[in-house]
Amino acid sequence: MKNYFIQNEWQIIEEGFNAEYHEAAESIFSIGNGKMGQRAMFEETYSGKSLQGSYVAGVYYPDKTRVGWWKNGYPEYFAKVLNSVNWIGMNINIDGVELDLAKLSPKNFKRTLNMREGLLQRSFQVEINNKQFQIDVERFISRDADEIACIRYSIKSFSDASLKFTNYLDGHVKNKDSNYDEIFWTRVEEKQVDDLLGVHVKTNKLNFKVAASMQSKFMVDGTEIKAAISSEINNWKVNSIWNTTMKNGSTYTVEKYVSITSNLYYDDADVFDAAFKNASSAYNIGYDLLRAKHIESWSDVWSKADIKIEGDVSAQQGIRFNIFQLNQTYTGRDPRLNIGPKGFTGEKYGGSTYWDTEAYCLPFYLGTSDSSIALQLLKYRYKQLDKAIENAEKLGFKNGAALYPMVTMNGEECHNEWEITFEEIHRNGAIAFAVFQYQLYTGDASYLKEGGAEVLLAISRFWAQRVHWSNAKSQYVMHGVTGPNEYENNINNNWYTSYIANWCLKYTAEVISNLEKDSPDYYKEFTSKTKFVKEELNKWKHINDNMFYAYDESLQIFLQQESYLDKEQILVKDLDPSERPINQHWSWDRILRSCFIKQADVLQGIFLFEDHFDLDTIRRNFDFYEPRTVHESSLSPCIHVVLAAKLGYDEKAYELYLRTSRLDLDDYNKEVHEGLHITSMAGTWMAVVNGFGGLRIKKDKLSLSPMLPSQWKSYSFTLHYRNSNASINVNSNEIEIKLIEGDSFDFDIYDESMNINKTNDSVKIKLNKTYAN
Amino acid sequence: MKNYFIQNEWQIIEEGFNAEYHEAAESIFSIGNGKMGQRAMFEETYSGKSLQGSYVAGVYYPDKTRVGWWKNGYPEYFAKVLNSVNWIGMNINIDGVELDLAKLSPKNFKRTLNMREGLLQRSFQVEINNKQFQIDVERFISRDADEIACIRYSIKSFSDASLKFTNYLDGHVKNKDSNYDEIFWTRVEEKQVDDLLGVHVKTNKLNFKVAASMQSKFMVDGTEIKAAISSEINNWKVNSIWNTTMKNGSTYTVEKYVSITSNLYYDDADVFDAAFKNASSAYNIGYDLLRAKHIESWSDVWSKADIKIEGDVSAQQGIRFNIFQLNQTYTGRDPRLNIGPKGFTGEKYGGSTYWDTEAYCLPFYLGTSDSSIALQLLKYRYKQLDKAIENAEKLGFKNGAALYPMVTMNGEECHNEWEITFEEIHRNGAIAFAVFQYQLYTGDASYLKEGGAEVLLAISRFWAQRVHWSNAKSQYVMHGVTGPNEYENNINNNWYTSYIANWCLKYTAEVISNLEKDSPDYYKEFTSKTKFVKEELNKWKHINDNMFYAYDESLQIFLQQESYLDKEQILVKDLDPSERPINQHWSWDRILRSCFIKQADVLQGIFLFEDHFDLDTIRRNFDFYEPRTVHESSLSPCIHVVLAAKLGYDEKAYELYLRTSRLDLDDYNKEVHEGLHITSMAGTWMAVVNGFGGLRIKKDKLSLSPMLPSQWKSYSFTLHYRNSNASINVNSNEIEIKLIEGDSFDFDIYDESMNINKTNDSVKIKLNKTYAN
Repeated sequence: MKNYFIQNEWQIIEEGFNAEYHEAAESIFSIGNGKMGQRAMFEETYSGKSLQGSYVAGVYYPDKTRVGWWKNGYPEYFAKVLNSVNWIGMNINIDGVELDLAKLSPKNFKRTLNMREGLLQRSFQVEINNKQFQIDVERFISRDADEIACIRYSIKSFSDASLKFTNYLDGHVKNKDSNYDEIFWTRVEEKQVDDLLGVHVKTNKLNFKVAASMQSKFMVDGTEIKAAISSEINNWKVNSIWNTTMKNGSTYTVEKYVSITSNLYYDDADVFDAAFKNASSAYNIGYDLLRAKHIESWSDVWSKADIKIEGDVSAQQGIRFNIFQLNQTYTGRDPRLNIGPKGFTGEKYGGSTYWDTEAYCLPFYLGTSDSSIALQLLKYRYKQLDKAIENAEKLGFKNGAALYPMVTMNGEECHNEWEITFEEIHRNGAIAFAVFQYQLYTGDASYLKEGGAEVLLAISRFWAQRVHWSNAKSQYVMHGVTGPNEYENNINNNWYTSYIANWCLKYTAEVISNLEKDSPDYYKEFTSKTKFVKEELNKWKHINDNMFYAYDESLQIFLQQESYLDKEQILVKDLDPSERPINQHWSWDRILRSCFIKQADVLQGIFLFEDHFDLDTIRRNFDFYEPRTVHESSLSPCIHVVLAAKLGYDEKAYELYLRTSRLDLDDYNKEVHEGLHITSMAGTWMAVVNGFGGLRIKKDKLSLSPMLPSQWKSYSFTLHYRNSNASINVNSNEIEIKLIEGDSFDFDIYDESMNINKTNDSVKIKLNKTYAN
Repeated sequence: MKNYFIQNEWQIIEEGFNAEYHEAAESIFSIGNGKMGQRAMFEETYSGKSLQGSYVAGVYYPDKTRVGWWKNGYPEYFAKVLNSVNWIGMNINIDGVELDLAKLSPKNFKRTLNMREGLLQRSFQVEINNKQFQIDVERFISRDADEIACIRYSIKSFSDASLKFTNYLDGHVKNKDSNYDEIFWTRVEEKQVDDLLGVHVKTNKLNFKVAASMQSKFMVDGTEIKAAISSEINNWKVNSIWNTTMKNGSTYTVEKYVSITSNLYYDDADVFDAAFKNASSAYNIGYDLLRAKHIESWSDVWSKADIKIEGDVSAQQGIRFNIFQLNQTYTGRDPRLNIGPKGFTGEKYGGSTYWDTEAYCLPFYLGTSDSSIALQLLKYRYKQLDKAIENAEKLGFKNGAALYPMVTMNGEECHNEWEITFEEIHRNGAIAFAVFQYQLYTGDASYLKEGGAEVLLAISRFWAQRVHWSNAKSQYVMHGVTGPNEYENNINNNWYTSYIANWCLKYTAEVISNLEKDSPDYYKEFTSKTKFVKEELNKWKHINDNMFYAYDESLQIFLQQESYLDKEQILVKDLDPSERPINQHWSWDRILRSCFIKQADVLQGIFLFEDHFDLDTIRRNFDFYEPRTVHESSLSPCIHVVLAAKLGYDEKAYELYLRTSRLDLDDYNKEVHEGLHITSMAGTWMAVVNGFGGLRIKKDKLSLSPMLPSQWKSYSFTLHYRNSNASINVNSNEIEIKLIEGDSFDFDIYDESMNINKTNDSVKIKLNKTYAN
């Protein structure tokens, strides 16, 4: 699909209709506002292939697990994001013919995602019975009024023709991903109040309630028509029906004002009424004003989060698409929500929380918004600590050890492939690292006393039990692990996992001893609550001092796992392109036996703990592993960008930057029809800010060492750091840093100490074109 | 459940009814005749927990596969043995109360499996409305007329009472193991012809047709009643109904004559009529005569296959139970059938063919019957060679390499856990070894030209592609393997798999070069068909000479896999008994990380290739691995018995013999309610014959080195060897070998050369009480 969408700085544009790419386009053109979101299905009937998906944040379903052979410790269910009420639906019948782009061949079809304004637009012409019609559609999910969404659907007729326009809400929807082909919803009620219609449904389990109400405005050449409208109420579904005769040259427009509500925000008894009240209010405010406020809200987002790239439309479009989708998915307004790998753009991964949140999204929120947003993500895990301890107990761990789930909605494990669920335990490391990173970035240690230390202790207890002493090696080893590279599993001594585990023990010990020293009251409370005893530290220390890390002396590289060099060593460049991505062409055993790496593994560790290693070490490992990495995880290329930029591998950094930022737009991994890779989009942000910008926090001080890809004239980004916002602009001559608001702060550029003092102050420094630190 | 069943040399007896053990007893008391079989469900209504299962050999269903996450190369379906027409069903209503042992408490309940005669018997008393009734039931599935089964159900009344006796056939049955809770059957027809009733059903896929017909005989005190009988035909179900009034002191008996037929043996159009014809004929022959012929057929089996143990009822009952169940499961009459791990006693493992057949069952059939039976098992695999090649192609192998499926009905892979399906490849080794073993045991090489060589070549091609050259080791390695011990998986250089693979390459090369020399015409045909070129042998030779085997120099043992000694080394005796079996108490990752062995792995290899190793090597490996083996596979203890016996570890051999022979009777692995471990029962036979008897074929000559467990007075078994049958009797003084029929043959006892010449000739030799070879 490379170059299928037209490149444009602020828009994604599809010209000409391709049924073959429709599901992919449905993903790409997704819209949302953090509280709800949906794929870009057509409003009118479409009988071709389509993945229907309208999602309400926080509303999920515990689908009965499907496994081959059950294993002790498997979860009973897999929580799934729910395809919810179809609120966009319209049936449009012209001269007795259903408008259906799978059957009629549209001309001049154009679909546009206007990212600056948050609008999904579409236009096309169709011929029915030798008569011509021009269709124009626009819809948005309001960022300003987050339970409101609107559609304006216009038909201009170039002949006289009959029109039956049915505008509906339908609660009888299915998940494509339903293990036993069940429908997850139960009907509650449909009703009409004046000109408003609504449906109310609830989930078969967990009692989530979702209501939708709509008011429609039917217009001829801009004048509202009231008389000819009828309503039809069926089980699950309400319809507002306009029967009319279109005249040559006139335009027939339907505005649909919808409100979607759930019992996350209302008492059960009020959910349905609230939807009616909201929809009525939206109708009264009117489309243009709602639209204007929505655009204004997006304008606000862009003023803080935009990354501007000059001289490279493809790169510019890529990064804006990433920032746009991230802001559509999570706003940080609700502490109960988190960030599913596919956001509101598909069902895959169940919409649940993964380690992606800590390892990829946290830096984005730390760098682009107030620390309270990032703190909410940490607290989300603290609230689930009890369940993480239960989860570890199920697997045989004791004494308050916690294993956070691989996939979760409410803290319970939902994943059930043993090699992931039980063995991909490095997620615990990312959750601990997030506590450290928050403290490092914000300079604020107070969260440690508000749950952070408890989380660290529980995770450290897990690691201390998860390693064992090997008599053969006279060291601690960690067996049966799946690292970030899922193309190996059940391996021994995965370097990344062992390293982060050992780091975690050290960091936790430091945190605890600082608390004892600095906060004796809290320390007392902490030890009493967690039954922590100092003997635990001795064991940790012993592990710290005797941890086995796989290392190759001749190559002087860390080994992803002990037997890695025993594998046949082939490079990605020597693979037959027709066999890529290998996960779509090779059997699983062949992938596992190969040396190919799905995503950064050793390099992920080096990325996190960069200052533990000298530049030569980083280079040797990068030079070894990057040529073996197929980047078939969306989370992979961004990490390589950051390291490549650091090493001065500008071309490699740029190539991988395009891959991460245009992963979905160019469908590198041939799976965009399933949805977008939302969490990895935060990695794209890191690729620019930490990669090209060279941002680090070193010894409690912000540090930058920017480079400029040769393909670009300049780039700029805004950064939130501690109490300040600053803009960083990099062009081929110089770097300018300007304080937009907040406190003065010190920072280093290329190891040179600098300071900006007051708002609108800026400093400039010459771009160092050969710097690699 | 240890000692739940009463010990008896020829019978399994349950005294007193325990609802809690009912499903286990249903498994234990299973009956069958190779063509059909069933669990010992009650005939009358039983509302308690029960696993219904009546199976027809060769009739299976391709159930849509259930997986967590799909992987390339996974099969689309899992073939399953089908719970088929319920032909035993009876509703017995006395004085308006349904006879249901879940609700009425029976007195003097006794259930007996009469193994000598192949009869399932049951008797009990119940009280209904303060009236007493004595019930006696007997049923059998005729071994003589293999589409016939009969029940005789008698009620003696000690009061006057009303009786409504409904005798029925019901085609509307479900598999408990249905992935999507579907019913696998479609109704074809029900009908009545004179006094016969029948149901006819077919499978929803693959068009298997099964029909059942019954004729009932209703009797009062032995006199048949015709007048009061009525029939009822419903969809799926036919009923024959007897309404009567029971008199104090009289006995009311129903004889049910059933025939079950399928389109494996009849044209589709004739299946139903055949069942009617058979059932009518059975009725006319009558219960007593059918029963007598059935018993006679069993008597024939026992005359050839019995193993007699004196002085140890528990051991005697165990071995007879094993021989009885094996003979109920497979008779070798039909080349399309094979031996499912649970036979006709449960749904688990789908009733499909596993490596159990070659590794465990083949020696039993070689040793107890004409070689034509064993040859059928080999031909079964040859017929499926094309599918095995397709299977390997799916996984990326080329040039006619074959990977036989882990689980199959028709040659296609049905299993779908990647660590088994793709990695438990040692099954290929067992299939090659079976070709060798057949030739060794029978002395007949002709099968090599009838498919054997093709099978060997295809398997060898697989091995040659499955290993790879390790630069690190400068040797060939085999990565990503699951050995027989499934408590480790995705390991590197599993000793067993590497050893059998390398052996297979050598043996195949020998076979091919012998064919070239001795059978040039066939060799030409062979090379043309398989496109074999001699260069392949060079690669094999290079592998032979450079194969890596994990070995520990200090312990001088073969390592099950390279990192085995890196594991925490704990012994089984130090496990908390409440945590056993560990597969029911531990999470999967914990099991995988532990050193505990599910079943013989290195020792399995030593068992197969015993003459490649000196006694000290065998001893060191046994001494190391046996204390780490939990024997949670039914296939494990028998192999250890053989080696323990060889090493003179009499107590260990005896302990493990009880475990294998009484595995199900004493429910060692707490899973007998799911069905019996049929294939491992052949291992029990090996435990006696190869273990205590010390039977081997050495240099084309039979060799024995018997020991006598101290708990036994004597034991004896019959052996089929080449063209002869001989009996071997071992008591505390001497061993007697007698030629029962066939040619004279030479053999060794304790390395002493001997011969028996003509029928009834026997030789005796003193028992060597300290012999270990």
